[in-house]
Amino acid sequence: MISMEAVLSPAILHLADVKDSNVVVIDILRATSTICTAIHEGAESVRSVRTPAEAMELRHEGYLAAAERDGHKLPGFDMGNSPFECMNGAVKGKRIALTTTNGTKCIEAVSHAGARNILSGSFLNLDALCDWLIRDKARIVLLCAGWKDSVNIEDTLFAGALAKMICNRTECLVDCDATMMAMDLYGQARDNLSEYLRKSSHYKRLSNLHHGEDMVYCLQHSVFETITAFRNGEMRKA
Amino acid sequence: MISMEAVLSPAILHLADVKDSNVVVIDILRATSTICTAIHEGAESVRSVRTPAEAMELRHEGYLAAAERDGHKLPGFDMGNSPFECMNGAVKGKRIALTTTNGTKCIEAVSHAGARNILSGSFLNLDALCDWLIRDKARIVLLCAGWKDSVNIEDTLFAGALAKMICNRTECLVDCDATMMAMDLYGQARDNLSEYLRKSSHYKRLSNLHHGEDMVYCLQHSVFETITAFRNGEMRKA
Repeated sequence: MISMEAVLSPAILHLADVKDSNVVVIDILRATSTICTAIHEGAESVRSVRTPAEAMELRHEGYLAAAERDGHKLPGFDMGNSPFECMNGAVKGKRIALTTTNGTKCIEAVSHAGARNILSGSFLNLDALCDWLIRDKARIVLLCAGWKDSVNIEDTLFAGALAKMICNRTECLVDCDATMMAMDLYGQARDNLSEYLRKSSHYKRLSNLHHGEDMVYCLQHSVFETITAFRNGEMRKA
Repeated sequence: MISMEAVLSPAILHLADVKDSNVVVIDILRATSTICTAIHEGAESVRSVRTPAEAMELRHEGYLAAAERDGHKLPGFDMGNSPFECMNGAVKGKRIALTTTNGTKCIEAVSHAGARNILSGSFLNLDALCDWLIRDKARIVLLCAGWKDSVNIEDTLFAGALAKMICNRTECLVDCDATMMAMDLYGQARDNLSEYLRKSSHYKRLSNLHHGEDMVYCLQHSVFETITAFRNGEMRKA
């Protein structure tokens, strides 16, 4: 019996039972989708850092420096926060130091809270992530990164998708209103996820910044099986 | 054009644009439903206080002292937090000093934030509240009290119900993911709200405390038209 709870904003993470849980950090557009992609594409690791300056500092140690704020790649950095920047061998064998508006802050925030594992959530490896969590059997915290602490639709939908899939495949205890709400919303949206997301605030924000291809990519379900987890201070292949 | 945002947990109230807005405080099970009922039943006012001791103190000034924690009426108080305690003339002409687990804390928290009006939200006066907000034209913040800062289903559903009704009756700007999610959830649940709520954590909690009648009562739509708003430090008939 796996118990689950969803945290719809990092501002209420302190209410969650993180200790000894498998925490899935969810920033679908785009940080955790990009991290999963980077590791799948052969990056050695992705290190979450707080500030662009820290990312730049790590460049001297051989890291690729990646920085995004408000949807923009910061000037002078090797990468922003797009999964496409991780393709065609660009990150193979590399370590990446990444700072983003929401997702990497969440990883950083949860990294000292005694979690059993911290995993990077994405639709891209949904199926494999679901199986991994079921095999591990530990309780699950679905941590939505949101947008600057506000609740957002796409992260909530992913929390619902993962919770629903796990509940369909094994016995679960869901005594958490946010998880139930997320599952019902996903049930409503799943047949046309990208259409449904058109109304979300961040979808509009990224569309205005011409990140349409990123969004189409990030909403694909289960296109690879690589699992990304926090090990020795960085996200790595689990 | 009325703009709206929903705040699903009081822990993220600081992100909302409260100043000069009409803030609807929502604690459906049961504080704001009880406050609306008390005012409709002729109570002069309901004052939100932080602690049971403060409520008891105000008894010396002629208030009815009402206190609830974790669903229980506290011993020695005139009332707990049940709408039925407000009926049959029990509160007519009286002032009530009320402290509850969630709802009254929210009213207290928002009372110094420069809101245009603070209104008590309930399904009981949904229709009238909707019309009042449309007539007033100001932007709206739907503040869900939740359960000890966690997001809950019933308050989110009410936020969705009110937002949906307002959007159906006038031009609205909803650039807030939480509001959109709440509207979609209400769309899914409205045909059988009490059945839908059976899975919610607080419904179970109150059922275990034999508050079933309270819940049936609180989920009734538009049974009276009295509007309750914060005036001179207390909730009163608007």
